[in-house]
Amino acid sequence: MGAEAKRAEEWADVTPDAARRLVTAAVQAFAERGYHATTTRDIAGRAGMSPAALYIHYKTKEELLYQISGVGHRLALDILRRAREGGGSPAERLAEAVRSFVRWHAEHHTTARVVQYELGALGEEHHEEIVGLRRASDAAVRAIIEDGVAAGDFDVPDVRGTTLAVLSLCIDVARWFNADGKRTPDEVGELYAGLVLRMVGYAGQE
Amino acid sequence: MGAEAKRAEEWADVTPDAARRLVTAAVQAFAERGYHATTTRDIAGRAGMSPAALYIHYKTKEELLYQISGVGHRLALDILRRAREGGGSPAERLAEAVRSFVRWHAEHHTTARVVQYELGALGEEHHEEIVGLRRASDAAVRAIIEDGVAAGDFDVPDVRGTTLAVLSLCIDVARWFNADGKRTPDEVGELYAGLVLRMVGYAGQE
Repeated sequence: MGAEAKRAEEWADVTPDAARRLVTAAVQAFAERGYHATTTRDIAGRAGMSPAALYIHYKTKEELLYQISGVGHRLALDILRRAREGGGSPAERLAEAVRSFVRWHAEHHTTARVVQYELGALGEEHHEEIVGLRRASDAAVRAIIEDGVAAGDFDVPDVRGTTLAVLSLCIDVARWFNADGKRTPDEVGELYAGLVLRMVGYAGQE
Repeated sequence: MGAEAKRAEEWADVTPDAARRLVTAAVQAFAERGYHATTTRDIAGRAGMSPAALYIHYKTKEELLYQISGVGHRLALDILRRAREGGGSPAERLAEAVRSFVRWHAEHHTTARVVQYELGALGEEHHEEIVGLRRASDAAVRAIIEDGVAAGDFDVPDVRGTTLAVLSLCIDVARWFNADGKRTPDEVGELYAGLVLRMVGYAGQE
């Protein structure tokens, strides 16, 4: 799938069409110049719309960021919950969580950067809601690691710290991933799944 | 050491005093609002100076970013080279590299965020120079891992990919670290040193 098709798919749930165009324009603008350096006029211009037309869909720039952040965080949570609830051993589920979470951060690195680095610009209530989604993502990964420890498959002295490190490792892919680079999203996902199984002291490995 | 003292120490090599005041003001402004949303007037104001006084030391905003990025990257490289050239086994040197690199990203997380996230705003020549420093940092860590593999202490199927992951894990500390949080920089460094030794399949562990 090309970059354009990926971008359309990413925001498929945002309706109507005009709102979706505004969201994709805002992601590009925020990623290039940062949230604070972007005006609603910039975003409307990129979407080929007037500032008044933007205002019909989003009353403020912060509402656009909130929508982007919400969609991104709910997608991330879905990916991790699916892995947690999927079949297979804890090691298989943890590897799948890492593979798919990394793939998302690599393929959607522009969105992921906005989602990860502009959290501080959200209004207080929105920030609280997004932090709740982040806690749920953390809990999903922690549950898989706890399952592995309970089954005697993993050896993890600090489950909370290790969960944080696993998520952090995956999230930072958005910072360095380059679509023109040597590794595909799938290859990074595979490499990282192996590294994470080592981090949890997976006994069944190799 | 308090936050204020840490900040003064961080920029001790920037002289004269007025230049140092401008650099610390720029770091705060870039971290809060982003590079593109910050004007030289904002920076001068934060430093208690006039725009004309700023101009004596820095001709452009980009020159300020370049100085910040240069100091930050050279510090990071020093930390990693010292670990590479330090005494002890490859495992001891890798653990020390991770501990000190993590500590820097935690203690100086505001600077580290500017250094890591505003690379794209550097002018072409400056960008190239900074990328050179980043490559050297990467090479320092890779050398320690290669030493460990050669000595039979580490088992690393993909040295380049693992080096990238180790640095990435440490760098992302700047994003999530919270000085009011549960873990101190030293505690995160210790946790991460252990996780990284697992990532390289360190045989001597536990």
